[in-house]
Amino acid sequence: MSVSTPSLKDELDIVIPTIRNLDFLEMWRPFFQQYHLIIVQDGDPSKTIKVPDGFDYELYNRNDINKILGPKANCISFKDSACRCFGYMVSKKKYIFTIDDDCFVAKDPTGKEINALEQHIKNLLTPSTPFFFNTLYDPYRDGTDFVRGYPFSLREGVPTAVSHGLWLNIPDYDAPTQLVKPLERNTRFVDAVMTVPKGTLFPMCGMNLAFNRELIGPAMYFGLMGDGQPIGRYDDMWAGWCTKVICDHLGWGIKTGLPYIWHSKASNPFVNLKKEYKGIYWQEELIPFFQSVSLPKDCTTVQKCYIELSKQVKAKLGKVDEYFNKLADSMVTWIEAWDELNPSTGLPNGSVK
Amino acid sequence: MSVSTPSLKDELDIVIPTIRNLDFLEMWRPFFQQYHLIIVQDGDPSKTIKVPDGFDYELYNRNDINKILGPKANCISFKDSACRCFGYMVSKKKYIFTIDDDCFVAKDPTGKEINALEQHIKNLLTPSTPFFFNTLYDPYRDGTDFVRGYPFSLREGVPTAVSHGLWLNIPDYDAPTQLVKPLERNTRFVDAVMTVPKGTLFPMCGMNLAFNRELIGPAMYFGLMGDGQPIGRYDDMWAGWCTKVICDHLGWGIKTGLPYIWHSKASNPFVNLKKEYKGIYWQEELIPFFQSVSLPKDCTTVQKCYIELSKQVKAKLGKVDEYFNKLADSMVTWIEAWDELNPSTGLPNGSVK
Repeated sequence: MSVSTPSLKDELDIVIPTIRNLDFLEMWRPFFQQYHLIIVQDGDPSKTIKVPDGFDYELYNRNDINKILGPKANCISFKDSACRCFGYMVSKKKYIFTIDDDCFVAKDPTGKEINALEQHIKNLLTPSTPFFFNTLYDPYRDGTDFVRGYPFSLREGVPTAVSHGLWLNIPDYDAPTQLVKPLERNTRFVDAVMTVPKGTLFPMCGMNLAFNRELIGPAMYFGLMGDGQPIGRYDDMWAGWCTKVICDHLGWGIKTGLPYIWHSKASNPFVNLKKEYKGIYWQEELIPFFQSVSLPKDCTTVQKCYIELSKQVKAKLGKVDEYFNKLADSMVTWIEAWDELNPSTGLPNGSVK
Repeated sequence: MSVSTPSLKDELDIVIPTIRNLDFLEMWRPFFQQYHLIIVQDGDPSKTIKVPDGFDYELYNRNDINKILGPKANCISFKDSACRCFGYMVSKKKYIFTIDDDCFVAKDPTGKEINALEQHIKNLLTPSTPFFFNTLYDPYRDGTDFVRGYPFSLREGVPTAVSHGLWLNIPDYDAPTQLVKPLERNTRFVDAVMTVPKGTLFPMCGMNLAFNRELIGPAMYFGLMGDGQPIGRYDDMWAGWCTKVICDHLGWGIKTGLPYIWHSKASNPFVNLKKEYKGIYWQEELIPFFQSVSLPKDCTTVQKCYIELSKQVKAKLGKVDEYFNKLADSMVTWIEAWDELNPSTGLPNGSVK
């Protein structure tokens, strides 16, 4: 890690949802070993998950979640990696990095192993520029700046809430695209970080994601997916759309681009299709909904924004499917649970930084 | 040029504004020689501009512009590369590529010379995606696609009106940034093309730019700069802001990213500062103006949009400086001149494609 990037080792937790032994951590050892891990065990709680020696971690299975949250545990998905958001809730750190257990260390075009976490930290510690597009990408990176024509009044930027990393090898495609292009691999290393502009939605993938938990944590709810639910593989998308409209409202930025991880294995497209098909259909109503969401001025905290959003979900998406009424209720439960476990947050916007 | 990219050699003009002999074309010979060039000679019309042998070109100096446009010639800037837009007006082709005479062929990271024009053509012939952000960049490039969570209803994209290319070596910085970072060079090759999202303004540089003239030509007016004007180096910015709000209104896309050219020489920052300083100040009012511009539904052609925009410029920016009243009048003159030289355009949106 370069001298110039703080490691934040006492301020960042790595959250990993898993159903298997965490052998993948061996490859990440040089990059992760100094950090604390929060492992959220999905599925059968009687199964033992092995964690390689030398890592500092806490592990929560379903029994733990039920014990800690009581009846509110029903807002946490079961048999779906959406359960990872429980880890965000129990963390006490300022920053979160979350990664899937089928993601490995990628190499840059020179063959050097990419320290994904270091790049996420750089992204989070430098401002975002959501109000105007910079054609040379992130103006805060070394060797670049704001170009001619960029208003000077906007060059201080705004706090960065989220850093969304990408994937070499297996791209994050939906089931239909997986089926149509089974052999497509992402080999293009794009050496860029950029801010997703204000007013623009993006598909946020939870595979390789970091965020400022103190700023935006309560919006990072991964919804109701998996066991007993009519939908899967939209957990991170849901969180991304909610997070984006709240960041836009509160004046914070979301970056995407570097760092890459190596995504090793395509999930089964037939299984994915079954999980996704309602989402693919519903999405056509969800996107116009999120594009037109307007949050009132008195929503000055993420919690207030999120509760307001849950009301609008119920009012406008409840008629799409009964599922959204249930989801809206869970959004409220999530915030109640968050505030119980994090009694000091929920202060007015600005005092949480 | 790859088999898969049409060369469009009978459908594209290359527009070059210049004050000197065009020796720089030697380096571009393998890429430009099959195209027709429109050279707009800036400054003293008695000077002879030498063009290397073997190029097919027409050349216009100030006397030609005055003769062709008569009193309307006062909308074309003098002693400023903004005069290039005269070339857009006299072209009869569907596409325009414009490049500065201090721009050379860049090399990609493998050392291969970049065929900038071929990449611009690829960008223009594939759709844009202004309504939703794709995290793997241009989904129409080989080896990539729309990612999970991208609405299927938006995957056909919209017509691409503009392709904005970038610069290796000397970045396109304003005078203050040039002064502060005299030694900064752009060495980062970002292998990406992307759509600037709807509702987001960007700084459009005229150095390495291509567009669909049939779609958006009448909006590509480079304003009043140079001799007798209080401002310079905002010609392309002005065109970019106008073009972007009109593309947003008419549902067309603007791409930025590849191709790179090699920008050889930094212009004098002290001279630039003199040209720019009013623009740097005015820009702080121009950006909010363009961010809030709303065009009525009956503006169904670029010409109608542009005339409406000129009215709003006069009404809202006239009070910033008298210059904007003059500019608004010139915008109208530009459209009148355009329509005289291009009597068949100005048809309702959709019939021009």
